[in-house]
Amino acid sequence: MHQFVDGEWVAEYEATNEDGEFDRQETTFRNWVGGEGVREGEDPDPDAAFPVEAGRYHLYVSLACPWAHRTLVTRALKGLEDVVSVDVVDPYRDEDGWQFTPEKAGCTPDTVNGFDYLREAYVAADPDYTGRVTVPVLWDTEKGTIVNNESEEVMRMLDVAFDGLATRDVDLYPEGDRDEVDRVIEEIYDPINNGVYRAGFADSQTAYERAVGELFDALDRWDALLGDQRYLAGDRLTEADVAMFTTLIRFDDVYHTHFKCNVRKIAESPNLWNYLKELYQLPGVAETVDMDHITEHYYTTHTDVNPKRIVAVGPDHDFTAPHDRDRLGGGPPGALSPADD
Amino acid sequence: MHQFVDGEWVAEYEATNEDGEFDRQETTFRNWVGGEGVREGEDPDPDAAFPVEAGRYHLYVSLACPWAHRTLVTRALKGLEDVVSVDVVDPYRDEDGWQFTPEKAGCTPDTVNGFDYLREAYVAADPDYTGRVTVPVLWDTEKGTIVNNESEEVMRMLDVAFDGLATRDVDLYPEGDRDEVDRVIEEIYDPINNGVYRAGFADSQTAYERAVGELFDALDRWDALLGDQRYLAGDRLTEADVAMFTTLIRFDDVYHTHFKCNVRKIAESPNLWNYLKELYQLPGVAETVDMDHITEHYYTTHTDVNPKRIVAVGPDHDFTAPHDRDRLGGGPPGALSPADD
Repeated sequence: MHQFVDGEWVAEYEATNEDGEFDRQETTFRNWVGGEGVREGEDPDPDAAFPVEAGRYHLYVSLACPWAHRTLVTRALKGLEDVVSVDVVDPYRDEDGWQFTPEKAGCTPDTVNGFDYLREAYVAADPDYTGRVTVPVLWDTEKGTIVNNESEEVMRMLDVAFDGLATRDVDLYPEGDRDEVDRVIEEIYDPINNGVYRAGFADSQTAYERAVGELFDALDRWDALLGDQRYLAGDRLTEADVAMFTTLIRFDDVYHTHFKCNVRKIAESPNLWNYLKELYQLPGVAETVDMDHITEHYYTTHTDVNPKRIVAVGPDHDFTAPHDRDRLGGGPPGALSPADD
Repeated sequence: MHQFVDGEWVAEYEATNEDGEFDRQETTFRNWVGGEGVREGEDPDPDAAFPVEAGRYHLYVSLACPWAHRTLVTRALKGLEDVVSVDVVDPYRDEDGWQFTPEKAGCTPDTVNGFDYLREAYVAADPDYTGRVTVPVLWDTEKGTIVNNESEEVMRMLDVAFDGLATRDVDLYPEGDRDEVDRVIEEIYDPINNGVYRAGFADSQTAYERAVGELFDALDRWDALLGDQRYLAGDRLTEADVAMFTTLIRFDDVYHTHFKCNVRKIAESPNLWNYLKELYQLPGVAETVDMDHITEHYYTTHTDVNPKRIVAVGPDHDFTAPHDRDRLGGGPPGALSPADD
């Protein structure tokens, strides 16, 4: 894979360690719109270096990427479409990294900077940048730089910092549940969100089997818990659910086959499956899901896993089918309940 | 892939045509134990060039290969274990082709000729042989040559020619159903038995999608038909069922993931799934199924499809779970019914 080293675009950094295990690099830009307190759920600081403003910030995303997808789902649930703008890269990522191909279905040009490649945004933000070029990118159009490219933190900013600009009264980091939300987001990251990548990119049978074992142990635990709890952190929909959703929605079409996570499908775990359908059916969420971008990205980009670049047909799930979650206590915030849609 | 050309072992013949479609080569050795009439179900000719004899003929098989597996299942159902001997090659096939690695679990030496590689048997049979080196091979220990390497024909010989030596009274090509058996074996070959390979080895998206579409159309038709018919050719177990079985038993563990036949699993088609379990539970059949050989072969041999050679964990099906086939008319021959086992 390619990345920057001191601002130089170079090939073939090693994504696995000596045991064949996938090591995901840390993201680099970690500033906060509204200031650091937003991380803890505090109201945004009007004097922050990156103050909250409508129309000032911009998201660069891939519809294929589960990390970027978290920010799109949060933006949709909060109704921030007119507050934070979005551009969409080509789902296929070649050796030049993510790029803008507006002629392709579901893709856009870079409407802010007119870049052809997303890496240009990274160099614009830091001419000596070292690291991968990833999505999401939260861009400040006023300062002309990257605010943050860590999905959990961008999700938190959209939820907390931009709450005053939201058109739906939806709080995904509710007081009283905050520790639990943080705990769950961290708990699901390694075995589930990143676990599918650890399985799919493993270079050794041992590393693969460890990843798959931990993945399905975790999924089974959550399936059991969701048997009598509506959402991951309790009765209320939170950022933890958004973080889980973007992995689950890709699972049966991509991770099960492409990453060999084939012990069972999400559709075979009744509670996870109904939970997934409920989240998909929340207002605005379905519009963020582009299964064509998702499948094209994975199957055509990872030629070390799928050299013929054939895109698997997949199970053709109906995510709009009825779910059974109303049998449980709690439910989506009023602003997201069907009557409001 | 490697093959012989005029007795010379050469690399890299092209397995797909200009449309990216997989073309399976025809097999070459097509002689008949008991004479040609056996093909039509006639009693074997005692004056045939290859007369029926106990202890004279030998099978070279891979436990991984569905074509070879047909002959093992037929041999087991008929109870021919002491009449026709068997050697088992290494499930991993490298550029030297199938080989004997007796130190490996489930493998044997070549107990007849002491060959290290199966290709030696082909050259022994024909020093100028041109073509692939495949299993099954039916070997005549008296003439020291290959009788036949076409699985359908070897299956027919074991069933019809060796019937007089069988220890179980099981007729898999019963009079009255013969045209239907032949028709079904041919009908399922292209979309199902070879269809999974057409999907998995396709070099173009179009060829892949055509193969997968035809595969699942065919599986769905058979699933519907098996809703009120016990076996593929009617009320009686036949060679057609053996031919279907060896594809179905590999489907969810291998073809679904490795060959991207991921529209649905066999376990998701109720009638096919119960039918598969019934066949698996017939006396002698389970002993012919070696899922370790099956998964190792596919995932480690086809590096053009799976370059990291990671063996997928798979769904861990219980093929011994109860089936519902007794609700239908017909049933296995008395010699195969549970009371006899």
